[in-house]
Amino acid sequence: MPWPKSIQENKQSLTITADLTISIDGPSPERVQYNATQFLRRLSGRTGIFINTGFPTSAKENSNATIKISYKTKGELSVDNDESYQLNVTNTGATITANTDIGALRGIETLLQLTSNNATQFYFKGVSISDAPRFVWRGLMIDVSRHFHPVAVLKRNLDAMASVKMNVFHWHLIDDQGIRIQSKVYPQLTELASDGLFYTQEQIKDVVAYASKLGIRVVPEIDVPGHATAILTAFPELGSQPGVTYNVERFSGVFDPTLDPTNDQTYVFLENLFTEIAPLFPDPYFHIGGDENEGKHWDANETIQKFKKEHHLKTNHDLQTHFNIKLEKILNKLGKNLVGWDEIMTPTMPTTAVIHSWRSENEGLPKGGSLIEAAKQGYNTILSNGFYIDRMESVVKHYQNEPIGDITLTAEEEARILGGEATMWSELATCETIDSRIWPRTAAIAERLWSPKDINDVDHMLKRLEVVNFRLEELGLTHIKNKAVILRNLSNNQDISSLETLMDICEPLKIYSRNEGGTEYKTFSPFRLFADACTVDAKDAVKFNRLVKDYLTSPTETTKSEIKEYLSLWSKNYEAFSKLNKTPLLNDLEPLSKNLSEVSKIILDNFDNKTISTTDKSKLENSLSVLKQDHVDVEIVIVTALETLLKNK
Amino acid sequence: MPWPKSIQENKQSLTITADLTISIDGPSPERVQYNATQFLRRLSGRTGIFINTGFPTSAKENSNATIKISYKTKGELSVDNDESYQLNVTNTGATITANTDIGALRGIETLLQLTSNNATQFYFKGVSISDAPRFVWRGLMIDVSRHFHPVAVLKRNLDAMASVKMNVFHWHLIDDQGIRIQSKVYPQLTELASDGLFYTQEQIKDVVAYASKLGIRVVPEIDVPGHATAILTAFPELGSQPGVTYNVERFSGVFDPTLDPTNDQTYVFLENLFTEIAPLFPDPYFHIGGDENEGKHWDANETIQKFKKEHHLKTNHDLQTHFNIKLEKILNKLGKNLVGWDEIMTPTMPTTAVIHSWRSENEGLPKGGSLIEAAKQGYNTILSNGFYIDRMESVVKHYQNEPIGDITLTAEEEARILGGEATMWSELATCETIDSRIWPRTAAIAERLWSPKDINDVDHMLKRLEVVNFRLEELGLTHIKNKAVILRNLSNNQDISSLETLMDICEPLKIYSRNEGGTEYKTFSPFRLFADACTVDAKDAVKFNRLVKDYLTSPTETTKSEIKEYLSLWSKNYEAFSKLNKTPLLNDLEPLSKNLSEVSKIILDNFDNKTISTTDKSKLENSLSVLKQDHVDVEIVIVTALETLLKNK
Repeated sequence: MPWPKSIQENKQSLTITADLTISIDGPSPERVQYNATQFLRRLSGRTGIFINTGFPTSAKENSNATIKISYKTKGELSVDNDESYQLNVTNTGATITANTDIGALRGIETLLQLTSNNATQFYFKGVSISDAPRFVWRGLMIDVSRHFHPVAVLKRNLDAMASVKMNVFHWHLIDDQGIRIQSKVYPQLTELASDGLFYTQEQIKDVVAYASKLGIRVVPEIDVPGHATAILTAFPELGSQPGVTYNVERFSGVFDPTLDPTNDQTYVFLENLFTEIAPLFPDPYFHIGGDENEGKHWDANETIQKFKKEHHLKTNHDLQTHFNIKLEKILNKLGKNLVGWDEIMTPTMPTTAVIHSWRSENEGLPKGGSLIEAAKQGYNTILSNGFYIDRMESVVKHYQNEPIGDITLTAEEEARILGGEATMWSELATCETIDSRIWPRTAAIAERLWSPKDINDVDHMLKRLEVVNFRLEELGLTHIKNKAVILRNLSNNQDISSLETLMDICEPLKIYSRNEGGTEYKTFSPFRLFADACTVDAKDAVKFNRLVKDYLTSPTETTKSEIKEYLSLWSKNYEAFSKLNKTPLLNDLEPLSKNLSEVSKIILDNFDNKTISTTDKSKLENSLSVLKQDHVDVEIVIVTALETLLKNK
Repeated sequence: MPWPKSIQENKQSLTITADLTISIDGPSPERVQYNATQFLRRLSGRTGIFINTGFPTSAKENSNATIKISYKTKGELSVDNDESYQLNVTNTGATITANTDIGALRGIETLLQLTSNNATQFYFKGVSISDAPRFVWRGLMIDVSRHFHPVAVLKRNLDAMASVKMNVFHWHLIDDQGIRIQSKVYPQLTELASDGLFYTQEQIKDVVAYASKLGIRVVPEIDVPGHATAILTAFPELGSQPGVTYNVERFSGVFDPTLDPTNDQTYVFLENLFTEIAPLFPDPYFHIGGDENEGKHWDANETIQKFKKEHHLKTNHDLQTHFNIKLEKILNKLGKNLVGWDEIMTPTMPTTAVIHSWRSENEGLPKGGSLIEAAKQGYNTILSNGFYIDRMESVVKHYQNEPIGDITLTAEEEARILGGEATMWSELATCETIDSRIWPRTAAIAERLWSPKDINDVDHMLKRLEVVNFRLEELGLTHIKNKAVILRNLSNNQDISSLETLMDICEPLKIYSRNEGGTEYKTFSPFRLFADACTVDAKDAVKFNRLVKDYLTSPTETTKSEIKEYLSLWSKNYEAFSKLNKTPLLNDLEPLSKNLSEVSKIILDNFDNKTISTTDKSKLENSLSVLKQDHVDVEIVIVTALETLLKNK
């Protein structure tokens, strides 16, 4: 995963032994050397095989290596880079050939995914693969402003990205809730508006260098002119509301503080800041945000109104475009192309800008949304609408979020669609939980952006995703293991099995309803709650819902007994839960456990009865209505299946 | 934990609510501000309480805070610093008072440990505590050469250290297996002898600054003249074997490559290196290692032999002292005191050096070992003998490792015993497993070094350690959660419960027998094996062994039924294990699971029988003998208890 462009199984297999060696043939081998070494460590770790030769060697030193990697040139980290590769595995060896070193890296990840085993040995499946990505821009955005995520969190997520062939890390560095990048020119930014949580320039360089080793570009985002509370906390004089002081925002949402686009000092500040920051990021793209500026402070400011009239800027959109065009000039001087969220696309915005599409039909736009609109108008564009992984929606939805679909585009228009990005806004994600919010769903998005359009069999993807999900632990990802950490905390170090049973049928509230209006949670609220242990596509719920669907379509004894097994598991939950010493945190879960057991027991007891007694019926209704309520910010996602099961008895 | 010097419970309690606030009264509040903020986050996380005020304020801003912290001066990070504090908790509030900010930090950790709960609320227990450490040097050494441990690993271990009031991080930066510190003067060191795994100077500064925030000193160690393979890989001309090339060592053990103490260039090199490195570490102590130099290359080198004669240096010890004294002069110029392992203590070594004691009676020295010897001879000294946590021995042993015991010392001699250090040599520990090798046992060592000598009730400690162990997860420590990660890997993502049952009665082989001779494991061997999931003081084994002991001393029905429950659990293990799809890694565990079930079943079936049938007896013998064999580098630590149980039937 992502599934390759072309794959042929050859019924051979390459046995993995302690004698396995790797050779590298190509210029500037640093990237391949690093990744091939990591390959050896990961392979050794997952197989337990004590591989004798701990490092790859050059093809000159070893002409007889088990795995031969060769490539022609060192790739450029750019949208023009060639990431294609060929991989052949036979009984006697494996070869990875590519035009660039980065293509070779993609092949190395594919080979590792071919690791298989039977009862007695590990082997690579024999295949011939010829692979290349559909889109050149396959990104993950991480918002480090709403919650700060230390370098180690980013590095492990970069590792995970590389493992599914993603190639752009979009670093959302500044927002209302904090400045996360050190400025030596304006040290006030982090002194006054970061709570001490920011990356030094050395750390920025370290992350960028690390990403480069993995063949990942890094695009920084400095979100302006809206989302500017943190900037204005340090520099209130650049704000659109004269004479006020600002404070770093603790809540979530869209806020009014906005830079003043009529103040020359705003551009001096931004030019200085961009000039300082730009060299830290070798990538030619630079994201200026530009989203969700509602212009309230502009409307309220007479000087700004006057300026608009004088410059014939009819709307706030026009004023923002005036601002954006000035920014683009600054960035161009620095050798950078401007990228912005789709609000920047106005009639007067030059098509040299890249449009980052976050709005589509659901936001009132025509079919295809701002992505198609941008491509048609001549902009290069990338898609994030439908890839908002922080919305806590099923992986199926994201996987089916085909960028172009049945829309007819000219070849030029299609070429302008560079790709897309999963966006991880972090209002509700701390470094303890962010991995489980990003993964494994982002792997399915990676496949959508890498694999051919016609690779879209959901069941096949889900099966492969289960393996990818598990294997991500190898890279240090915490998405699985931190669930138990949170449950241990909730239980005060008691047996967590009854809580795990609950967790596996519960999902955090979706589409921002967990933090309606942005006022329940502050940045420093606790995020070690039951909802934080729960994840999208709750394991048992997915299985149970599928079973019920299958059973109602064509009932078999097997599905019936599997359904009953789940009902039996849940019917016993409250007994186990009740044995725990009570704590304030467990009390909140009590109605959930109790009513789940009640409902499951009645359904189980009556499974083969034609009718249910009136008493049981009324009990059921009561319990189901309790389960449908919002409990501790989760949704019990088997309730509909239970009801369908009851209805169709 | 560590238990305070004086504690009185007052039967009051301070309820924790969303209104909780903290005020700080003292100069340079950065350290306290940081730690009090972390206190709020941790408290909020463990209680789920949405504390309204996310940051501490000054006492001026809030004269009415729930928790009032005050101190007089900013502490110096030195052995002379005052870490004492007073803590009072009543129904209406808590106060922490200290002479220094670092004393205040120690009080903050104590208060957090007082967090308790009943069924409906969280509260701090009411107490009056007056506390101060017994020893001024309470350290943890981490060897980052044998395996490299990234900054994030160090930071979470520093957090853990601070949570149990440890105050010295001893950073073992260079050994045969790699140079882990960047030198700009000698970039060859990391270019040729680090495999790319090292800390930049910025990262070193970052770790030192982080430690300082937690009131932890950082003492670097550059191990010379032995353990020098990595240095000599970059600079063979400084070696004692002329004309050879050296290669970074991949195995473990004591190796011969040694710096040439008769070569002036050796001192030029070390002076330049120390001069570059010393300023990164503000601490006045600098560790030069000095251990395990067997002098083989010195003996074989005629020039060195000649030098010895010319300088009237009779033994290699004398020659090493000649070397050490030159190093001490270099260090003194840099404002540093020399620390070295106890081999440096020779008759001619000045008493200005600090002796780091790692040898005692077991290593052929008199009672009290090099620690007492050093103190008597006028050296300041610190104890690590008995605190070698990488030996995989029970926490009980480390806890009972009283530094002075019943040895009579003068007040001056006693004052020279500065404290001690747990030493984590990392031949067999990767960043995935090192936390579980360090914790929780190091918390007991922390108590030994902080608490009064008469705090030595093992059962009381073990009970408290269970809580500390669990709470360490709050700081991101991976010692608990990574066990499941390894088992998931072994099982290839199948149900791990049968493996967990095995793990909970198995311990990794002890006292370096896992890697006898240092040749089984290389630095890049896999450390995701069953033995790596297992830890010292295996949970169920500790409980079962205790039950058997109690039962045989005074049998009760309760202990009997608890013993039977364990036997029943184990007797079913093989059935569950057998259901897993076989993999090469699981095959290795099969004899363990099978014979455990066999033995447990027979003992269980015959529990109340006076005699066991001959067939069963012979089966038992067979199975027990299999269980006693070395399986996958673990020891099944219930075997003795099972045999005792059988014998006393």
